Amino acid sequence: MGKIKVEVSYLPGVEDPEAITLTKNLRVLGYKTVKSVKISKVYEFDLAGKEGREQVHEIAKKLLCNEVIQDFHVKE
Amino acid sequence: MGKIKVEVSYLPGVEDPEAITLTKNLRVLGYKTVKSVKISKVYEFDLAGKEGREQVHEIAKKLLCNEVIQDFHVKE
Repeated sequence: MGKIKVEVSYLPGVEDPEAITLTKNLRVLGYKTVKSVKISKVYEFDLAGKEGREQVHEIAKKLLCNEVIQDFHVKE
Repeated sequence: MGKIKVEVSYLPGVEDPEAITLTKNLRVLGYKTVKSVKISKVYEFDLAGKEGREQVHEIAKKLLCNEVIQDFHVKE
């Protein structure tokens, strides 16, 4: 019936240890032009029914995203 | 100087255990309309210099992506 993407990323000001480590190690490796890196995760849902859109919003809010430190965007 | 995104995803036909587990458990939880889920990771680089674009391509190819099972796209 369709595909919907959900992107989960960290809120501004929240430290992402993976991104910090990656940035640091890229500098060590000589990639000096990299100021910072932000990492986010994209879930692409393949849906069978029409009520899927609301369900995906619910899944993102309840299960994929920790709203204390993360934010999500649904892209249709 | 600018931001560039790199999206790393699994090649078609490669099993992603995290995505399989998520899909299975969503069905158990009653989300029957979800046929499948694909998970990818997005790295957003904040760059200081002009030669950054080529470097990001190199970083993606050498460090972020395992080209045996993954693929990457650079979005400017």
